[in-house]
Amino acid sequence: MSSGALVAAVDIGGTKIAGGLVSRDGELLHEVQVPTPAKGSAAAVLSAVHSVLDLLASQASWHRVDRVGVGSAGPVDVTAGTVSPVNIPNWRGFPLVDQLTAHPAVSGRLPVVLGGDAVAMTAAEHWIGAARGFSTALCLVVSTGVGAGLVLDGKVHAGPTGNAGHLGHITVDLDGDPCPCGSRGCLERLASGTAIAAWALGHGWRPEADDTSAAAVAASARAGDPVALAAFDRAAKALAAGIAATATLVELEAAVLGGGVLRAGDLLLSPLRHHLQTYAALPFTRRIRILPAQLGTHAGLVGAAALALR
Amino acid sequence: MSSGALVAAVDIGGTKIAGGLVSRDGELLHEVQVPTPAKGSAAAVLSAVHSVLDLLASQASWHRVDRVGVGSAGPVDVTAGTVSPVNIPNWRGFPLVDQLTAHPAVSGRLPVVLGGDAVAMTAAEHWIGAARGFSTALCLVVSTGVGAGLVLDGKVHAGPTGNAGHLGHITVDLDGDPCPCGSRGCLERLASGTAIAAWALGHGWRPEADDTSAAAVAASARAGDPVALAAFDRAAKALAAGIAATATLVELEAAVLGGGVLRAGDLLLSPLRHHLQTYAALPFTRRIRILPAQLGTHAGLVGAAALALR
Repeated sequence: MSSGALVAAVDIGGTKIAGGLVSRDGELLHEVQVPTPAKGSAAAVLSAVHSVLDLLASQASWHRVDRVGVGSAGPVDVTAGTVSPVNIPNWRGFPLVDQLTAHPAVSGRLPVVLGGDAVAMTAAEHWIGAARGFSTALCLVVSTGVGAGLVLDGKVHAGPTGNAGHLGHITVDLDGDPCPCGSRGCLERLASGTAIAAWALGHGWRPEADDTSAAAVAASARAGDPVALAAFDRAAKALAAGIAATATLVELEAAVLGGGVLRAGDLLLSPLRHHLQTYAALPFTRRIRILPAQLGTHAGLVGAAALALR
Repeated sequence: MSSGALVAAVDIGGTKIAGGLVSRDGELLHEVQVPTPAKGSAAAVLSAVHSVLDLLASQASWHRVDRVGVGSAGPVDVTAGTVSPVNIPNWRGFPLVDQLTAHPAVSGRLPVVLGGDAVAMTAAEHWIGAARGFSTALCLVVSTGVGAGLVLDGKVHAGPTGNAGHLGHITVDLDGDPCPCGSRGCLERLASGTAIAAWALGHGWRPEADDTSAAAVAASARAGDPVALAAFDRAAKALAAGIAATATLVELEAAVLGGGVLRAGDLLLSPLRHHLQTYAALPFTRRIRILPAQLGTHAGLVGAAALALR
């Protein structure tokens, strides 16, 4: 274990709030987590975050901490230091940076840097994961939703408010279904695990044992079920169009894919590569490398640290 | 007229090759142009470019020129210094930078900087036009095709090969019509002047006097023709989805629109603003300003100069 400076990293999601101490080479030295009281009051959620900081501050190595990095479910506004996580309804425009700065172990000593969770994951993959060494990349998490972040000119491109890279909410189907975000035909409505399972169910797929997860659709697809296979093909097509659109707009060397749906492996990746041959048509978009994410469940904490070290 | 240093600017299109001398404050001091022998040999097209340089080099102020900026119809590859303009079939991977550097008035003295024409237009609007002062912007030309370029972090984002911003070839309709580029449902196939006229004709619009241009569709729309109005609405919807997708991916303060189709004015801009309310749904995308381009026909030359001054 190095004896150098550490980042206190906090990762705030709708299910759990995780914390850790991260070294300058990306090693996660401690990890703690508490459940998110997602339906609780704003103060109850903040209290859970403070308890994570309390746990970290009780570590002997806390004195080596020189900054705090926070990744949060979005939307976020890094300019204002506020967060409005979709799954935490009582946090709307919540002044997270100010409230963390006010924690006794932080106050007056440690700068607090905020970013969105997908941007944090991207920062982690670019720092020590699959996007390392690329000057341009798109990093995706395909799970119950679709999150993403961008690396441009060798740096994470978070955008002025920290929300750049919201690939899940670009329209790939102009007259497609309404999305809860207010738009239509959003990529997430076609490519998320939720969307894969809903489409399969709507087209006659019948799960065993009432398991209607994307993982169950994947199991059926592996057994040759044509509807389940078609559900993955449709998701892969939407992802291909979205990755190609991004490459067409900003140029990309690589797309890094992680998240639970990627456990389907080639069920998703094979049709994705196939459809990319159609949608990534312009010469400068044809060399995108499709790579699996490397950081898994630690990406949120390592990424929160990476944001604080930019 | 200032007495400072000048950029020799060259703008290469499928119809004409223009040249000019541009001051450090963006003033275009001389302008010359020759027709593009687009179907001629590679050497014939180069000869036309060299004749433009000859004309510029004969100006008394040529001794003040300290660099050459070139905007070219794309695709381009600024890393290799080559161009492959769609409308100039005998230039494929043509080594334009080397060939310009070899011109006697340039050789050994002046650096040559190459960019795509839409990126050059973007650089011009950002330098002294409608995108001036914005740190993020998308600049579009809606004409026979749809070209675009990006400003990110206060700078033109050309991408590693100089092709970033190809908004006309992002897919906004996953199962849409095939595009000559090889992809499907490209924005350009729905929103260009060519597409507006083709869609109107295909849906029963009958032009007066055999004029099947987008301008003629606009004239019919102004007279209340419902098919002509629907053709502009459909184009505006595709543009709104594309502008919103860009804002969702990289964050945008402004979208600047120019090109011949914008002469339709509110026929295009009113439905564009309407559809943006749907497609630009996430909070951080809702404040995009829609602005008319300011530089008109000089954008290519001023932009070529701007690229050389970055």
